Amino acid sequence: MAIVVQKYGGTSVGSPSRIEKVAEQIIATKNQGHSVVVVVSAMAGDTNRLVDLASQVDQNPSPRELDMLLAAGEQVSISLLSMALIKRGYSAISLLAHQAGIHTNNRFNKARIKDIDTRRMLIELQQGHVVVVAGFQGMDSEGNVTTLGRGGSDTTAVAIASALHAKECQIFTDVDGVYTTDPRIEASAKKLDHVSFEEMLEMASCGAKVLQPRSVEFAGQNKMPLRVLSSFTDGDSDGTQICYEPEVDRQHPVTAIACQDDEILFSVKSMLPLSELRTRLFAELAEADVEIDMISHQASAQSKDLNFTIARKDLVAAEDICKEFVSVKLISAYHCLKQLSKVSVIGNGMRSHCGVAAGVFATLQQQAIDVFLVSTAEIKLSVLMKQCDARLAISSLTKKFNLND
Amino acid sequence: MAIVVQKYGGTSVGSPSRIEKVAEQIIATKNQGHSVVVVVSAMAGDTNRLVDLASQVDQNPSPRELDMLLAAGEQVSISLLSMALIKRGYSAISLLAHQAGIHTNNRFNKARIKDIDTRRMLIELQQGHVVVVAGFQGMDSEGNVTTLGRGGSDTTAVAIASALHAKECQIFTDVDGVYTTDPRIEASAKKLDHVSFEEMLEMASCGAKVLQPRSVEFAGQNKMPLRVLSSFTDGDSDGTQICYEPEVDRQHPVTAIACQDDEILFSVKSMLPLSELRTRLFAELAEADVEIDMISHQASAQSKDLNFTIARKDLVAAEDICKEFVSVKLISAYHCLKQLSKVSVIGNGMRSHCGVAAGVFATLQQQAIDVFLVSTAEIKLSVLMKQCDARLAISSLTKKFNLND
Repeated sequence: MAIVVQKYGGTSVGSPSRIEKVAEQIIATKNQGHSVVVVVSAMAGDTNRLVDLASQVDQNPSPRELDMLLAAGEQVSISLLSMALIKRGYSAISLLAHQAGIHTNNRFNKARIKDIDTRRMLIELQQGHVVVVAGFQGMDSEGNVTTLGRGGSDTTAVAIASALHAKECQIFTDVDGVYTTDPRIEASAKKLDHVSFEEMLEMASCGAKVLQPRSVEFAGQNKMPLRVLSSFTDGDSDGTQICYEPEVDRQHPVTAIACQDDEILFSVKSMLPLSELRTRLFAELAEADVEIDMISHQASAQSKDLNFTIARKDLVAAEDICKEFVSVKLISAYHCLKQLSKVSVIGNGMRSHCGVAAGVFATLQQQAIDVFLVSTAEIKLSVLMKQCDARLAISSLTKKFNLND
Repeated sequence: MAIVVQKYGGTSVGSPSRIEKVAEQIIATKNQGHSVVVVVSAMAGDTNRLVDLASQVDQNPSPRELDMLLAAGEQVSISLLSMALIKRGYSAISLLAHQAGIHTNNRFNKARIKDIDTRRMLIELQQGHVVVVAGFQGMDSEGNVTTLGRGGSDTTAVAIASALHAKECQIFTDVDGVYTTDPRIEASAKKLDHVSFEEMLEMASCGAKVLQPRSVEFAGQNKMPLRVLSSFTDGDSDGTQICYEPEVDRQHPVTAIACQDDEILFSVKSMLPLSELRTRLFAELAEADVEIDMISHQASAQSKDLNFTIARKDLVAAEDICKEFVSVKLISAYHCLKQLSKVSVIGNGMRSHCGVAAGVFATLQQQAIDVFLVSTAEIKLSVLMKQCDARLAISSLTKKFNLND
């Protein structure tokens, strides 16, 4: 029997009655003759409740203990969902991450899955059980509870689907698929029936919240068929399928526009040759788990300016390192510009169509939108702008590239 | 360094501010030079919240899944308490039951601890950590989460203290010790500084809620020094110590009076020789996990009446079995009397003092209280009465045996 892995997010299991609806959906899949593994997030609001409890005890809690605390959230949702399935006469068994064999490294709060020992899950599936696995969490080599960071349940689902060689991994969420751009920002956004893996990866990395980037990476490594669906509509939509086959070129060069808010631009004046500073500074930032997003590429070898962007959550760590570099005279000064947005146009068609960059810059200039930094990739062009300009940029670019057709 | 095990119940860790108070108390013990293992219950109200969620999904939830659900409660309290200790500069580590090596049988909802693999706890203690263990829960041989039943955290604490050969096991609760009788029922009740193990065991079995009977049994098997203390007063009380040494006979033959409400009396008319029925019926009841408490001892060999009491929670299971026995003509009829209380007078002094039974019956008769069943043990006499008579019985017996001195 083919295995289908389904993932339900926090709003999908946000109340006992929502959990009953999810149980019905799982049973429909089971009745199609599939073996079903379900990955569940904590009930909506529960993780925030736990984070709030922690912050009442310590504003900066121990990472290990925070993971121990947060993991209680999925423990509640998996057991309630299993109860709902059992009540309907379907055998089901809930498994915590360590029981499901999900092994991670020991980076608390942002652990990475190393491997999955599928033996227990396979035994339960062979016995006909629906296997309900706690998303978001894992176990390190010492048996400690770890978590994968927000959105980690997507990664759990894709990793399990890959390990079990599932037929499909279905991500159920509160939207009915992947859109050309966030429909809350741009009302004319359209749902995509298909999106290529490369496009999805760029979209996830560029701020589209529908899938966690790491889960898309995982899917790509294993060519796992992936589908995004709504758990709130009744099966009349096929959602969005993420495809691996080389596609017929689209009519439009651009498939989607993504936006990442809360970017911070650092400008650093080096006292070293720039290539040397870059190596040393970026090594320090990596050590402190600061992710660097965009980097300026200066044409001139004499330039002493290094520009890069980071996410707001890493601001304190990045500033600490820059201050240290100032104090030991590796840089003479730095400053940072906050409240920026990175708007990215993404499309497989950019491989064969020229002129996308020209179109982007002309459109932004028409709207008098300043561009602070640009980064390009084969199927993506990202521009950094003031956060207050992002909505206008998205709407103008949507029209320019006919994404509302 | 001597190990001290402390157990904090749900009200003791009922809020972040209560958890901070508990952290201070643990630090005081740690600063006395002890290695400290702490066993914690779920935050007050949390278990009820989870039970309520379960009942919204299924009124009669899967026992395995219910244990999975309920175990989330202690996961929250142990991590918050560890955070509070770490914030104060004391290293601490929370351990779930499976991490702490607590192995149980697989009777979900009422599992029994089989053994404790202390290796992880000892490693953490050697590194100077305060070890914070989830009470109430365990792991069966297949790695499933089990729970020990309400009050099970007491048993976890005593079992861990025994396994670690601790110097003392301290049960912190919302009362400042063991009383001659429940002070909420009888205002003149007095706190006992010492109570013998045998008395404590009878008291716990007869409805005194301060300790779970199984935890007292465990303590006795290992002669573990046990103390009941309040977590709400600041160290000026030594609570009640449970002693194993043969004591000097007390001035009074009776040490304490316990009361168990919600007893149900079954009267069964046998169609078999009574000894045969008793064997068969009690075997069936045991199979269904119905605990029989008091049993009538009929003087006459010709008697066809069997009387016994059970707890209200087991009523449905016991009635099902009686109905089955009626249908296969092993008994001709049965009836049950509800809302009864078992009032027990308990005291080591009863070994050497005569006339306690006479005193009990005279006192009850003076108050016109009907007695339905009597059971005796070496240091205990229990009488079954209407629940509405229990308060008067306790207060009269308190006076009769001078427990308010």
